[in-house]
Parts: sequence; structure tokens; C-alpha cells
Amino acid sequence: MKLAEELEFALGARPPGSTLQRWLYSELREAILSGRLAAGQRLPSTRDFARQHKISRGTVLAVYEQLIAEGYLAGATGSGTTVSPKLPNKPPLKPAAPAPAGATLPRLSQQGRLLAASPFPLRDNGVVVPFRANQPDVTAFPLPTWRRLSTRYSRTRLVHEMGNSDAAGYAPLRHAIAEHLRFSQRIACDAEQVIIFSSSQQALDLCARLLLDPGDTVLLEDPGYPGAQRIFRQAGASVQGVPVDVQGLRTDPPLPVAPGIRLAYVTATHQAPLSGTLPLERRLALLEWADACDATIIEDDYDGEFRFDGMPLPALKSLDRNGRVLYMGSFSKLLFPSLRLAYLVVPDGWTDAFASALSMTCRHVPVFQQAVLSAFIEDGHFARHLRQMRLLYGSRAQEFQRACKARCDGMLDVLPVSTGLDATALLPAGTDDSAVAAALGQQGIMARPLSFYRVQHPAPPGLVLGFSCFDGLAIREGMGRMGEVLERLRRIGGS
Amino acid sequence: MKLAEELEFALGARPPGSTLQRWLYSELREAILSGRLAAGQRLPSTRDFARQHKISRGTVLAVYEQLIAEGYLAGATGSGTTVSPKLPNKPPLKPAAPAPAGATLPRLSQQGRLLAASPFPLRDNGVVVPFRANQPDVTAFPLPTWRRLSTRYSRTRLVHEMGNSDAAGYAPLRHAIAEHLRFSQRIACDAEQVIIFSSSQQALDLCARLLLDPGDTVLLEDPGYPGAQRIFRQAGASVQGVPVDVQGLRTDPPLPVAPGIRLAYVTATHQAPLSGTLPLERRLALLEWADACDATIIEDDYDGEFRFDGMPLPALKSLDRNGRVLYMGSFSKLLFPSLRLAYLVVPDGWTDAFASALSMTCRHVPVFQQAVLSAFIEDGHFARHLRQMRLLYGSRAQEFQRACKARCDGMLDVLPVSTGLDATALLPAGTDDSAVAAALGQQGIMARPLSFYRVQHPAPPGLVLGFSCFDGLAIREGMGRMGEVLERLRRIGGS
Repeated sequence: MKLAEELEFALGARPPGSTLQRWLYSELREAILSGRLAAGQRLPSTRDFARQHKISRGTVLAVYEQLIAEGYLAGATGSGTTVSPKLPNKPPLKPAAPAPAGATLPRLSQQGRLLAASPFPLRDNGVVVPFRANQPDVTAFPLPTWRRLSTRYSRTRLVHEMGNSDAAGYAPLRHAIAEHLRFSQRIACDAEQVIIFSSSQQALDLCARLLLDPGDTVLLEDPGYPGAQRIFRQAGASVQGVPVDVQGLRTDPPLPVAPGIRLAYVTATHQAPLSGTLPLERRLALLEWADACDATIIEDDYDGEFRFDGMPLPALKSLDRNGRVLYMGSFSKLLFPSLRLAYLVVPDGWTDAFASALSMTCRHVPVFQQAVLSAFIEDGHFARHLRQMRLLYGSRAQEFQRACKARCDGMLDVLPVSTGLDATALLPAGTDDSAVAAALGQQGIMARPLSFYRVQHPAPPGLVLGFSCFDGLAIREGMGRMGEVLERLRRIGGS
Repeated sequence: MKLAEELEFALGARPPGSTLQRWLYSELREAILSGRLAAGQRLPSTRDFARQHKISRGTVLAVYEQLIAEGYLAGATGSGTTVSPKLPNKPPLKPAAPAPAGATLPRLSQQGRLLAASPFPLRDNGVVVPFRANQPDVTAFPLPTWRRLSTRYSRTRLVHEMGNSDAAGYAPLRHAIAEHLRFSQRIACDAEQVIIFSSSQQALDLCARLLLDPGDTVLLEDPGYPGAQRIFRQAGASVQGVPVDVQGLRTDPPLPVAPGIRLAYVTATHQAPLSGTLPLERRLALLEWADACDATIIEDDYDGEFRFDGMPLPALKSLDRNGRVLYMGSFSKLLFPSLRLAYLVVPDGWTDAFASALSMTCRHVPVFQQAVLSAFIEDGHFARHLRQMRLLYGSRAQEFQRACKARCDGMLDVLPVSTGLDATALLPAGTDDSAVAAALGQQGIMARPLSFYRVQHPAPPGLVLGFSCFDGLAIREGMGRMGEVLERLRRIGGS
């Protein structure tokens, strides 16, 4: 049998910053794991080991004891310590070495491959440059009020609410949202029907998982929101695009009726990305279709609260008498994105299924934000903030349209802007809008091409451009740079 | 054609609290939606309508205008207003009436039916009575410190971090966790490998979706954590229980090796529910098995940080050289449950797949809690809190064992308690532990039967009993009541 003494010559240099004890422990452990010291092999006594290495016996003793406690060594200290005979005899592990590049990518499932191809940026430094879309102006948020409510909650309720909470959400927030919706959207719901999520994506994902079997069909606006397309596709559903015109989802020709069609996703108040508002007759046709198909409609009201022009139409959900519509809203765009709160209004009787699925896949959303937000709504700050933001975004939308007319007339045709944070502008027919967006990106201008929203029908070439975070100066300056890029591209295209 | 004037006689009584305008709007809208007023039908002029109903013409005008804006009516006000001819001619919607009970349950997908059967309570008032399991003692949490850090963050960083954040988590928190794990668990990871979730369930769910195809097999400890069983089953995987003894997962007979076996779930530090610590030779056997199967191991270290007795073993992950182990931890049990923060350490190179899947199904976890927690760790409060909790839980574990010996000897056999928040106690062979738990529940004692953790092999009858939140008095008092129930059951059983 090889004697443990030989091991000593293999002791590496002590790494800087490591204690003697730590270093000795690592060396012995590594020798065992790599198979250099075999199972059952006898080690020198602590006395011999200490003498040979000129270290204190106490240090050796401590290392032996730790390795015994962890199962590397066996036997009473001092009387014949051996490498644990229970360990496998062959080298159990390869020597530590960096794995070859690429070898450590996970072997993904079929669904995993779809989930690993997100349309959202994985890294986001939060920087907002013109004309980044979907961004509320967080500098206009009443942060002192929010801070005050946070502090109040920390000092009063938090101590009573540190335990687990309801899976469907924090009860006061569910009440506050139901009341807001009854008033602002004419949705006759009660708090029990409101489910709290951390984001619209999470709500969409849970809808897909609860309602769709692989092979089912979902109707989507085309062009439409890519986050929804991906969610339904990864659930194994097939996605069928329904053409969109300036009024939103077309219901003529009639929507297809077939048993496997289980869901439709619509942005009725403000179509993403073409910004139309679905007229009443189409809303009624959509509800009739859902009855005929025994299907469910997800109404994503992602920024409908920011209507600054014209009379608001109540939510599609307000017309729903047969429990067909799931109404979805998000506070991340109404207040600020790092907040991460959204909600779904479900038909009466559906709450437990959603709450159960949430408790399995998330447990519940953190209580703190929910509590502060419920106070923010109850105390009237939410309604006041919405009113102020409607004025602000309305004036910025006008600035944006004026600046575009002044600088990019004939190159960018802005569709009517009545709601929300972004404008949609069409490019001349035949333009490659992805190439335009890339060229703009090189000049520091963010623009999202309409082709990004495509489902199956070709989308008209165009750009989604956010105006919400920029004052008149920033808008005109950004528009100036955009104009230069578009003119240059036109010269190249025309030459 | 029926004249609109006839409609007037059908106007219902004005509900209390409704304005005249709101009431008139609702009545007309309802008449149109219910088909009482047909598409194309002419309405009286505002002048006639006002005179007939003895209301001001201005009110009628406002209601007509709103209904025109919303698409119910068509035509210039005053010159021949009609019900919009675009609306469907047949009654588009049934009259508003409560839907028959039960008719509004959602039609769930196959996966949806599994998700709708959660092992977690949907409603939780946070009340902790003896011997509720899995509960940290939140009264021992340094809330003033947490409040101070919250306020500091609100006043300093929050204004800069209101936008979207990284899908994988808040960078400073990922750094703080990696550093903590390098020190406390000897896991050689860097911040890039740490992914932040809102809960262990969310992390488990995403692992299942990314790594499992329907029909794949997952090895689970039997008895084992029900939250994991459900997650893998709803992903379409088949679950195979591996027997557990006092040392945890048995690796002898050897674990099965087959191509469809993709995942194993283990609680190596502290087996849930039988509380053993997996010895080194089984850890090495498990890693070898994962290499042989090309499988992944999820190591759920749900309360291993609370080891108060004996030398801690480093995490299984610390032995992982081939990127086989996903290490999972949660702050909800270490700090307080309403916080909702957990993490996963993934092999180098796996981060983007997990971050992408998170961005699709959740976007990211709220920043506020992540930021406060990272300061809590960096400033040393986390390590200090863990040390204090180890002492506290250690002394309560002793109290619990003493009280059980004194009151329930021969009826409850407490397994060694070295870690965590709960004790596991065996009942005499042949006892129906669910019936015992139900009987205890009627006396206000919470106890979770071991059969709750069963996968496929029969579990020994027993109870999981939390000691973590109760002082000596509460423990003895609860044990007294428990003793009475057990004695009564024994008398019934023996008679």
C-alpha cells in the first residue's frame, strides 16, 4: 500500500490569503477526490504529519477532524486515520479543470428552447434614449409620496405581515384595483376576481398554461405583441394572426370558428403596435365569436389608462356577460417598471384555479409593493398621477408629431396618437424597417421596427417610437438625428 | 318601424346614488345591447326626448354624445340619431343575469388541471400556531435594521433604479449571494451564475420547463418535498421515488441509469422530511450517476443554513466539477416569508437560458427587495442574523425534544434534530398519520403527516412539527395538548 507520506511532495504552493489550515484541508480533500489518495489508505499520525511538514500538531488535528466530520477520513484521530473506506475506489471525479467552452450549455427541452429565445433584453441598464418605446417617464413619478407611504407601511403594518400571504394577492390591493376598475373602466368586478401578478408576462404565461393544451389555436392581432406570441407558442399552441387595420383587430371576414381555437389575445383600447381603438361592433362580434367557440379572450389593457385625446371607450370586459374575457393591466407602465406589479380580472369562479397555479409556480407576489401600492390608490395618488401623466404625455405626443412633420415629412407617416407612451410611424412601402432601425441604432436612436410585431401576415414597414420620456428639446434633437439617417438611407436607396 | 318613444316606458327606476345622466346612459346602452333597440332604429331628437322625460336637454345631449363616441349611436346630434347600423341585428348579448352556478369554472388544460391542485394553502392569514412547520420566527428578525436600509435605499438609489432591470436579477444582490456562498458553502461560483427568483417554487418550475420534456423521468427523494413532486408532474414528467433512510437519499441499490432520466431533486444538507444529512460517499455516487445519465441534480438547500448542531457539510454543489448541480436557496425562510426572494446557482454558461426564460415568464423580480437585501448582506446583518437564529432554533429544538420526551414518550419518537425549523417524529407503526394530524387540528395543533410527502413508497407514519416560532412555554403547552390527543387516540385504537 502506498504510504501517505509520499503525498507530502505533491503539496502545492500555499495560495496567497489562504490560512495554513485551510490550505492543508484543501490539499488533502483534493487528493482524496482526485483519487491520488485511495479509499482505505492509511494516513500518517497527526504527530508525524506535523513534524514532516513543520506545522503545529493542532493545525493537523483540526484538519483531520474536519475531514472526518465531512466523511473524507475515517477512524479516531491519532489511532490510525484512513481515507474513508466507504468512498468509491476508482477516481470519483476528474481533476478540477475548466470545462471546455460551450460544453456547459444546458440540454434544453423543446419548451426550454422556446423559453431561451426571449424577445426581451436580458440585461437592461435602464437607460432611456430617444425614442425608446414602452417607457413611462419615471422622473414625473411622485417619489416623495411613494417614499412616505413605504415608510408608513414599514413602521405600521409590516411587522404584522411578514408571514406568507394569499396566493391571489394582497387583499387590500385587490379591493383597491376592483374599485378603480369599476369607476374607470366600468368593469363590474369584485376584489375576489382580481389576481395579482408580478407582470403581464407572468399573467399571460399562467393563462396559457391553465387554458391551452398543445395543438390548441390562439388568435392574435397581426401585427401584435411579441411577448404574447412567444408565450402561446412555448405553451405548444399554434398561433393564428388576424389582420389589423386602423381600428384594430378585423372581425370581417368573420373570425374562424373551430373546436381547437381556445383563446384570442387583443389590445382593444389601444392596439399594439398600430394604435387603433376597437369599435363597438367589432367588440360585440368578438364576444359572439367567443361564445360560438367556447373560447376565452385576453384583453391586454397595457396603456389604455393613458388616453389623452378623445372620449375613452370602456373596456371590452365591461361588455362581457358570459365570463369570456380576462382583463389584464400592469402598474409597471403606469407607475415605474422596477415596481413589477400587474393584475388580471378573471370571471367569477375562476379565482381558485389561478391562485392555485400561482401558489405552485410562484407562491405569491412580495407583499411590500402590494401594500404600498394599495395605499397609493386608496389615498387618491394613483388617480391624480394618471391625470397628470395624461396631460404630460398628451403634450409630448403633440411635440412629437409636430417635430416629425417639421423634420421627417414624407419619410415618416405618424399614425394618429391618442393614447399611451409611443407613436407608430409608417415608412414608405417596400422599406426594410429592421435595416432602418439598425441604422438609427448606430446613431444612438432607439426605434422598434413593425416587422418585430409580425405574426404571419407581412406588416407595413414602420417604426414604434416612444415620446413619453422626452421633452420638446430632446424630441426635436432626436428627430433631427433621425431625419439625417432617413435622408441618408433614402439617398442610398435612390442611387 | 318601432318608434324609439316606446322605449321610454321601459325605463327602470333610477338606482340610488346614480346621477340622472349615468342612469339614462345605462338604460339606453342596455336597451341596445339587449336588442330592445335594434341596429338602425331612429331615436327621438334630444328636444323630444328631454320633453317626454322631463329632464334637461343638456343631459340628453351629453348622453347621446357619449353613446355616439362609444359606437352605440350614429349620426350628428339633433339631426336624426339612430342606433349604430354597424351593430349586429340580432340580439347580440343575453340579458344581464347571474350565470348558473358552476357554469363559470374555466375549461382547464391537462397541465392546468395539475396546476389547479396546489399543495399550498391559497389563503394564508399568516397565523402561526404550534407546531406549524416551515416558519421562521419573524419576531426575531431585526426589523429596525431592515427599515433603516429600506429608507436609505428609497432616499438614495431608488430614483436611479425605477426602470427595468436585468432578467437574471439585481447585480449587487447576485454578487452578495455569490460571496456568501463561497464563504459559507464553499461553492466556487461567481455572481454571473446566480439567478434571482421570487421563490424556490418559481426556480423549480423554470428548471422543469427548461430541462424536461413530457415523458422524461425525475428522481425524487421518497418521502420528499410535495412542491417539487407537483412541479415535475405538471411539466409532464414521470416521477420516480428513491427510498430515503436516516442519512437521506439511498444510493444503494444504485440509482437507475436510463436515457429518459434527466433530473434528480435532493435535499442533501437536511432531507425533507426525514432530516438526514447525505454522507460524502452518497454525494459522490450521486454525481457519478448524473455523469452516467447526462442528468442534472437540483440541490434544494431550503434551510441548511440553520444548522445548529454538529459540523456543517459543504453543499453538494461544492463537489460539482462537471456542471451537474443546480444549487437552490431561499430567503423567505431565512428572513421572512412575505419578502419572497430565492436564488439558483447554475453551471457556468447556463445563465442566459434561465435569464431568458425568466424574462418571458416574469420579466424580473422587483428591484426594491433585491436592493435592500443586498445591503443587508453586504453590511453583515445577514451573517449576524443567521448566527443568532442558529442559537435560537438550537435552544428551541432542545426544548421541543425535552418536552416531547416528557409528555409524549412512547407515542412520538423524535428523529435527531440538527438543522432547520422543524422536527420529524415517528408514530407507532400502522398509525394513520393523516387521521392523527386531523385530530390534532381539531385541538388547534398544526401537524403535517409524513404521508403528505409520499411519492410512491409507503412512508413511515409520523408528523412534521415546527418548533422554530415557539418559546419553552408555548412548546410545553402545545405538547400537553398533543399528548392528550395522542393518548385519546391510543385508547380508541386499543379498545
